[in-house]
Amino acid sequence: MTRLPQVVIIGGGFAGLSAARALKNVACEVTIIDRHNHHVFQPLLYQVASAGLSPGDIASPIRWILRKQARLRVLLGTVERIDTAARQVWMDGHDAVSYDYLIVAAGATHSYFGHDEWSAAAPGLKTLDDALEIRGRLLMAFEAAEREHDPARQRRLLTFVIIGGGPTGVEMAGALAEIAGHALRSEFDAIDPASSRILLIEAGPTILPAFPEGLRASAKRALVRLGVEVREGAAVTHVEAGAVALGSERIEAHTILWAAGVAAAPVGRDLGPGLDRAGRVSVDADLSVPGHPGVFVAGDLANFVHQTGKPLPGVAQVAKQQGAHAARNIARLLRGEATRPFRYLDPGNMATIGRGNAIADFGFLRVSGFMGWLLWLFVHILFLIGFRNRLSVLLQWAAAYLTQQRSVRLITRNPGS
Amino acid sequence: MTRLPQVVIIGGGFAGLSAARALKNVACEVTIIDRHNHHVFQPLLYQVASAGLSPGDIASPIRWILRKQARLRVLLGTVERIDTAARQVWMDGHDAVSYDYLIVAAGATHSYFGHDEWSAAAPGLKTLDDALEIRGRLLMAFEAAEREHDPARQRRLLTFVIIGGGPTGVEMAGALAEIAGHALRSEFDAIDPASSRILLIEAGPTILPAFPEGLRASAKRALVRLGVEVREGAAVTHVEAGAVALGSERIEAHTILWAAGVAAAPVGRDLGPGLDRAGRVSVDADLSVPGHPGVFVAGDLANFVHQTGKPLPGVAQVAKQQGAHAARNIARLLRGEATRPFRYLDPGNMATIGRGNAIADFGFLRVSGFMGWLLWLFVHILFLIGFRNRLSVLLQWAAAYLTQQRSVRLITRNPGS
Repeated sequence: MTRLPQVVIIGGGFAGLSAARALKNVACEVTIIDRHNHHVFQPLLYQVASAGLSPGDIASPIRWILRKQARLRVLLGTVERIDTAARQVWMDGHDAVSYDYLIVAAGATHSYFGHDEWSAAAPGLKTLDDALEIRGRLLMAFEAAEREHDPARQRRLLTFVIIGGGPTGVEMAGALAEIAGHALRSEFDAIDPASSRILLIEAGPTILPAFPEGLRASAKRALVRLGVEVREGAAVTHVEAGAVALGSERIEAHTILWAAGVAAAPVGRDLGPGLDRAGRVSVDADLSVPGHPGVFVAGDLANFVHQTGKPLPGVAQVAKQQGAHAARNIARLLRGEATRPFRYLDPGNMATIGRGNAIADFGFLRVSGFMGWLLWLFVHILFLIGFRNRLSVLLQWAAAYLTQQRSVRLITRNPGS
Repeated sequence: MTRLPQVVIIGGGFAGLSAARALKNVACEVTIIDRHNHHVFQPLLYQVASAGLSPGDIASPIRWILRKQARLRVLLGTVERIDTAARQVWMDGHDAVSYDYLIVAAGATHSYFGHDEWSAAAPGLKTLDDALEIRGRLLMAFEAAEREHDPARQRRLLTFVIIGGGPTGVEMAGALAEIAGHALRSEFDAIDPASSRILLIEAGPTILPAFPEGLRASAKRALVRLGVEVREGAAVTHVEAGAVALGSERIEAHTILWAAGVAAAPVGRDLGPGLDRAGRVSVDADLSVPGHPGVFVAGDLANFVHQTGKPLPGVAQVAKQQGAHAARNIARLLRGEATRPFRYLDPGNMATIGRGNAIADFGFLRVSGFMGWLLWLFVHILFLIGFRNRLSVLLQWAAAYLTQQRSVRLITRNPGS
């Protein structure tokens, strides 16, 4: 019996999963390693953070997703080091896994641009735990305000700052405005949640820079209508517990969320020297890593320069296509063929701003408002993994749309501690 | 404008909620205080712990539940002291709330019978956080076993001990046997989850002592059929991380769950001197507390001797009926009438043992097996709060029944840490 080639995939996100699936009928043994036991549908993570969905609605165990695939095993563990000379991946607990081919799809984490000390005061949104932490903080702010007697402190408790005007920041701001303005309305005694101040702060000249001007303006109008203060060209110079500084301006806010910067997963450093400033690994046209034979990088960790000359954004579609492409290139090598360069097929770009409003850019078609939202809904339900999840999300969105309620306003754990 | 009488309710569990509702049309102002922002449907907590349901399915914000009730406010806080002389309740953060009438429905927590040091090794199941912690531990045990090379350690990782043979212990054991035997089947490579060893340990002569002999035997058979080792008359003498001792016998088990003892909430000590050994407050026939005028106790915190001479069990029905009764007695006092004694109407007793099997005892009617399970299903869905929860739970149970899957096998946070 000849030993089958060993393919190891680091990461069970969009890139890792799509790589594993693309290897389904290839004569090799696949090991997929992730820090979490579940795959998260990241585009809807903000809905868990804003109490619209449960963690179980947007996440499924990686084992379960891949249960029907033969010659595949799943390991729960943290990869601490890649030894490309010995072709081994080292996990926590001093376990090593050997590979013939490796796909590194370890993704990205928050970047505080050198100010890691801001992270406790302004958590970011990357994992289910992050989402539950943020949900707890948001809901706790209203609860604490209800019990507060001092008007200035009450004001601070009802001020929310979101730093970063990309899709995540915009979606969080919209969802938060709806919680304050609708879902919590008439449930409090000493405060009026609708009087909350919600600021969306973007250092660049505009929010949603990836979208065309018309859609951006439409999104901005929708945010303002919801009561969000949009501050563009406003660079945050300092963050501490309870306050944000924009140069000389100081904003007192109990709740501060970080949706600004992204840094590549630290394991990428073993694939140098070609790392960019965010720590991403520069890859060749076929997604392989120069100087590390047999190693491919896909998803947020890859620094891939697009056919148009621009680097690709860190979105789900890029990750999915790259993961599958890296896997197919490994299959080609196993068959003795040459690898092929990766080409990105851009399916478009979407963001939602509260209930019944979204913008969608498909190049040839640009939609905003209610039609955009229906499209957004359709696409997100379609790509959710698992029939049960889709049905559950659809039902909860329908209920939320009709009642303007948020179904999972649960504070679990001790937020902020 | 005359000031309305102030009624304070401590606790938003079954007793506290039903007290609040019973005061709906009474001319008074109600303040309900709870440590959590949500009410938990405790009879289904084991389903969250065993990955069958999401926290959002069995819990709803107390504010939301009571949103339509006038003259009522909800405070999130921990009651630290009751000053019955000054008629004040002191919360964390040195906030005091004054009352004319007080209903203490603070419930119960785990008791380790003087061995509080066992709690880290053998967590109990009272809150949503407990349930998520236990879920993480259960799932992590299988994940760690998959990565373990040493057979003895692998064996220990796949051994689960549940201490306490009441309904919670029985339901956890049944659910765990189904996870191991069905839900995880064929998803692992190095281990066979179905080979797990699951022990249910009861110190008394029999599990489910509250049920009649015939139903007990039926439950025991169902457990054995699922592969659970039932050990009756076996007193746990020592618990440490990774092992349980029964006298001279030592059982190595990575996962140990505590479902044995219950202790009253500590705030009861301010309502002495009439406390029983578990810290429960002895109440008069009308649920008032001797020596503390205007104070009533309802639910698990009350030590109430039933008309038959036996103390009432700590179950949801007792709590609901007592909460409402205490509230109605306060309404009577406000109208200048005399209070009335509490009488418990026993609606019956149920426990479920895995998929499609339950026992139900209604006195005049005793059911077991599939019919018992349908009844159990019907009653539990009926009493869940909120239409959305009911629909969601019904759908998930239907899916789980058909597919034998567990839908929310998510490990969040770092279990055991």
